[in-house]
Amino acid sequence: MRRYRLTVAYDGTDFAGWQMQPNGLSIQQVLEEAARPLVAPATCRMHGSGRTDAGVHARGQVVHFDMPREMTPVQLRRALNGRLPPAIQVLEAAETAADFDARRHALGREYRYFIWNGEVMPPERRLYAAHVRRPLDPARMCEAAARFVGRHDFAAFSANPQREQLSTVREVFGVQVLADGPEIEIRVSGEGFLYKMVRSMAGFLMAVGSGHETPESVSEVIASGQRTARVETAPAQGLFFWRVWYD
Amino acid sequence: MRRYRLTVAYDGTDFAGWQMQPNGLSIQQVLEEAARPLVAPATCRMHGSGRTDAGVHARGQVVHFDMPREMTPVQLRRALNGRLPPAIQVLEAAETAADFDARRHALGREYRYFIWNGEVMPPERRLYAAHVRRPLDPARMCEAAARFVGRHDFAAFSANPQREQLSTVREVFGVQVLADGPEIEIRVSGEGFLYKMVRSMAGFLMAVGSGHETPESVSEVIASGQRTARVETAPAQGLFFWRVWYD
Repeated sequence: MRRYRLTVAYDGTDFAGWQMQPNGLSIQQVLEEAARPLVAPATCRMHGSGRTDAGVHARGQVVHFDMPREMTPVQLRRALNGRLPPAIQVLEAAETAADFDARRHALGREYRYFIWNGEVMPPERRLYAAHVRRPLDPARMCEAAARFVGRHDFAAFSANPQREQLSTVREVFGVQVLADGPEIEIRVSGEGFLYKMVRSMAGFLMAVGSGHETPESVSEVIASGQRTARVETAPAQGLFFWRVWYD
Repeated sequence: MRRYRLTVAYDGTDFAGWQMQPNGLSIQQVLEEAARPLVAPATCRMHGSGRTDAGVHARGQVVHFDMPREMTPVQLRRALNGRLPPAIQVLEAAETAADFDARRHALGREYRYFIWNGEVMPPERRLYAAHVRRPLDPARMCEAAARFVGRHDFAAFSANPQREQLSTVREVFGVQVLADGPEIEIRVSGEGFLYKMVRSMAGFLMAVGSGHETPESVSEVIASGQRTARVETAPAQGLFFWRVWYD
């Protein structure tokens, strides 16, 4: 068997998330189905670098899988894209080391969260950004964003801290807030993230931006170690799993 | 009766175009249905500044209609958006002169055509840009674009010159080609456009960009006055009716 690595983009709107689900079609399932004839008679199993929830998009999810055949990057990408729906596409494909693990070997991940901060949501942005009508102050959000950076216990920003098996401590490398007219973009990079952590950070940054919370309160909430209703999870459609990096 | 003017944005993907159609739902129909309770007992009739084909989007279609009631811009916009689907939204609304005519009083219109020039189409762009895999040279396209500017007989760039009742002469004010990585944007402004003229211009600019046509051939085709298979109509999903201007 040879191991291959894929960079995959998807529009999460109509899927039940990355992982195989009893209800609804998952991205993983569609990818495995597309690769089935290439991998046969073996069973195709796609391993993602991280999960994404229902409705969350990806520009650079990284996946590994094993296949008995040898294929060039272009052959493999074309064979898969020809069998995939336009909502899920392989951007890059390549053979990789036999022990490459998309999840365990990831050194860092970047997510981007998009907000449309205006009275009316442009129709073509409705599936790819969260709509926030109350005016947000991007400068205030920037100030708050800096307080997420570093190694902290992010239990207060996880939707389900009990689900984390080892620890709720994570290192956040950087958080940037970029504004371009009514478009506000939050870029978050880190070694890894807890369940719904990026959406919880985005939700809290929105509360800071609208004046309901202070920039300083980020540190206070992190220190509390308790998830409360004070932290809201921002809508799934604004989130893109942007890229993963490796050695 | 009072006359109102709306600026409307829509995602044309699931509609049969601007105008009322026997088959499929039109944008006009959905807008008229949304305004019906406000206009009643009169019949609601929405007059657009121009038609858009099935699958074509808008960021700034302008519409006028008459209504017996007085409503503020905010009231009217909210009342309509509350009854419209997220795929069609009113960006601005205001009372206007009783004789304002969205189509006849327009001094100019701008369309933008979006191309994704890369091997793989990112899923979230698939409904809002044309996918062109063969490499395009934006500098060559710019050079060709300048040759459309001016007052010309554009019969060769109309899908159906016989349909034009008066003349196939139109003035094009400007054509710009902007490139940002794999995204290429064509901005076209003019007093008005023939049926499928912008998509025909975009199709020909693509042929120039890929080296199938020369920049000089734009003038040659215009001068021929004949629509032939040499001019292809670019796909509907790349086109946005961007704005209309008035005195």
